[in-house]
Amino acid sequence: MKRLAVLGSTGSVGEQTLAVVEAFPDRFRATALGAGRNLDKLVDQIERFRPERVAVADAETASRLRERLGGLPASARPEIGFGVEGLCDVATHPADLVVAALVGAVGLEPTLAAVRAGRDVALANKEVMVMAGALVRREVAAHDVALLPVDSEHSAIFQCLAGQRPEDVGRLILTASGGPFRTWDAERIAKARVEEALDHPNWDMGPKITIDSASLMNKGLEVIEARWLFDLPPERVHVVVHPQSIVHSLVEFRDSSVLAQLGLPDMRVPIAVALAWPERLPLELERLDLAACGRLDFEEPDRKRFPCLDLAYQALAGSEAAPAVLNAANEVSVAAFLDGHIGFGAIAESNAHVLARHLEAEAGRVVHELEEVRAADAWARAAAREWLGLAEARS
Amino acid sequence: MKRLAVLGSTGSVGEQTLAVVEAFPDRFRATALGAGRNLDKLVDQIERFRPERVAVADAETASRLRERLGGLPASARPEIGFGVEGLCDVATHPADLVVAALVGAVGLEPTLAAVRAGRDVALANKEVMVMAGALVRREVAAHDVALLPVDSEHSAIFQCLAGQRPEDVGRLILTASGGPFRTWDAERIAKARVEEALDHPNWDMGPKITIDSASLMNKGLEVIEARWLFDLPPERVHVVVHPQSIVHSLVEFRDSSVLAQLGLPDMRVPIAVALAWPERLPLELERLDLAACGRLDFEEPDRKRFPCLDLAYQALAGSEAAPAVLNAANEVSVAAFLDGHIGFGAIAESNAHVLARHLEAEAGRVVHELEEVRAADAWARAAAREWLGLAEARS
Repeated sequence: MKRLAVLGSTGSVGEQTLAVVEAFPDRFRATALGAGRNLDKLVDQIERFRPERVAVADAETASRLRERLGGLPASARPEIGFGVEGLCDVATHPADLVVAALVGAVGLEPTLAAVRAGRDVALANKEVMVMAGALVRREVAAHDVALLPVDSEHSAIFQCLAGQRPEDVGRLILTASGGPFRTWDAERIAKARVEEALDHPNWDMGPKITIDSASLMNKGLEVIEARWLFDLPPERVHVVVHPQSIVHSLVEFRDSSVLAQLGLPDMRVPIAVALAWPERLPLELERLDLAACGRLDFEEPDRKRFPCLDLAYQALAGSEAAPAVLNAANEVSVAAFLDGHIGFGAIAESNAHVLARHLEAEAGRVVHELEEVRAADAWARAAAREWLGLAEARS
Repeated sequence: MKRLAVLGSTGSVGEQTLAVVEAFPDRFRATALGAGRNLDKLVDQIERFRPERVAVADAETASRLRERLGGLPASARPEIGFGVEGLCDVATHPADLVVAALVGAVGLEPTLAAVRAGRDVALANKEVMVMAGALVRREVAAHDVALLPVDSEHSAIFQCLAGQRPEDVGRLILTASGGPFRTWDAERIAKARVEEALDHPNWDMGPKITIDSASLMNKGLEVIEARWLFDLPPERVHVVVHPQSIVHSLVEFRDSSVLAQLGLPDMRVPIAVALAWPERLPLELERLDLAACGRLDFEEPDRKRFPCLDLAYQALAGSEAAPAVLNAANEVSVAAFLDGHIGFGAIAESNAHVLARHLEAEAGRVVHELEEVRAADAWARAAAREWLGLAEARS
């Protein structure tokens, strides 16, 4: 029986994680759940999974949750915490695996707490490695824990690396769908409307990541994530555009042999791999039929039309704080685009400007504490707002 | 230092094996070589690799070899044997790995001798598993030796299975180029000329295997080989046509995840994998560039236009001797086609006829000894010659 602590249990990955737990009740038990403010979902999860501990966003939500659980027998009522402290309690609750499925910077501290408590971590919260990859990598090594990726691309690489020696790895090749603007010219991309950018060809995801897919910033962030997850220098992390999203990523070994992981796009597969590894669960999902697919296409990413990809490599080469800067600048510019304040082309321009400012001042900067990551994040948000001419107060 | 005994050292796989030995002299040493009648090549190999033991086809060739080695110092002269016994001495000479790279039935006995002597075997000699797969599988299990495939498709599957649990494997998917007649209609295929059948789109191979690629019989024989190499029931071994021969084969797991091995077609990769496993050698070969490939196509094999594929499944379902029967019938019909005695369409007809005759009489037959395999082989050759109206004496 594997005990799971699930951070972000009411989000998409969290819910799918609990669906796997429910499908394999003799293999998994969810002993701790961390959520935000979605009490309807959380109460339902508490009733179904009977966790020992939960956490919510704040004191007020915690007290509302306490009320709503009044009808449960005392033995079925979990310990309730809130805020970062509550999430850290969930992350360090006795468990065999912590599923880090929060979204954004809020996941940083609980994930790091899990690592420092010696817990293996299934990582869906990509900002953890994007913002603090160098720091997390060092902590993972120091505490000798396993980091199991949940992102489909990184799970693909993880699966291809199984049974292989690290010294035999040549390079990682992340696939990118190319997004909705893959075939558009630069001028048209610069003027793209929000609904055009939200029209992702293969994956149904939230608006932020869908915009990032359209700009290839998402692939850039995944390059950063891969660099730290698999501890390879950035020049050995490559990207190829593959519009069908059937090949989820590849690994080239030093004998020139390449392994790839393929499948229909379905997050349940990487989630199940991370939960059950080194076993695989018998999932009743539609099988990939290559003959029905007919063809798989590949092309070089166009770094001129999609400058965000190169920004990720610049950030990795620049400083350990630079990825956090790029990530924060991008969050601000994408939100501004979604709110109709700026054009699509300004996302990359703003990101490039903020990153360049950071690197002018802090090239080579090493990150020792999470506090420094937060400071870089805050600085970049302010710098992006300033450059985009946005009001300071936007939180 | 890994000591290798190489059966078939003067053939294509044998020579490429020795090229790897030469490129990594601190990792491998060829201590025994088995060849046929190509004395020029063998003498050269003896001078370069200084094996302790060699074997040639017959007593006369052995005595000619002895003469040609007269100029070598006594300490550099290997023990010389001949015939099946000589090959078996090579196969059981002290070594860490036996490379079984003979072509055809002649490799059966030496390979089985290697297995029974507890040697790990790198298997390129596909007739071993096609003719005697059930028997060899049992001996491999009884002597707990490793069988490392050298065929590019089976090496691909082997690489995809690394680090995976056998119970998680769903099915194997062998890729087939589809050969030169992939897009031809049945009528045109039936009348194909020899030079058309020999025009393989991707691989440069000998005439027999090239004809087998054109009829898909080769893929059928590989299905048989895979069934026994990986010990999976035939219904879990599938075939997909992939004209570019970049994806060498795939494995689907029970969570619906698929792993594939890819690369430019080059036999040095599977040879190096088999020699060095679980390590990979730093080979300086051209790297696969997926963007340069552009596209990879997949389609169902057409079992009507290429009936030889289904014959393999019929053979596996029919009896343990049936694959040897099918293989022998096919050798006769392909030779008759290459000699201009029959049309291309008659290859499949003859194979089907001989297999059906065998299954009428011997469905469910279990094979206990190599002698039974040889008898099935001889019976099928005679039956094929009879059906094709060929002279009996053809050897």
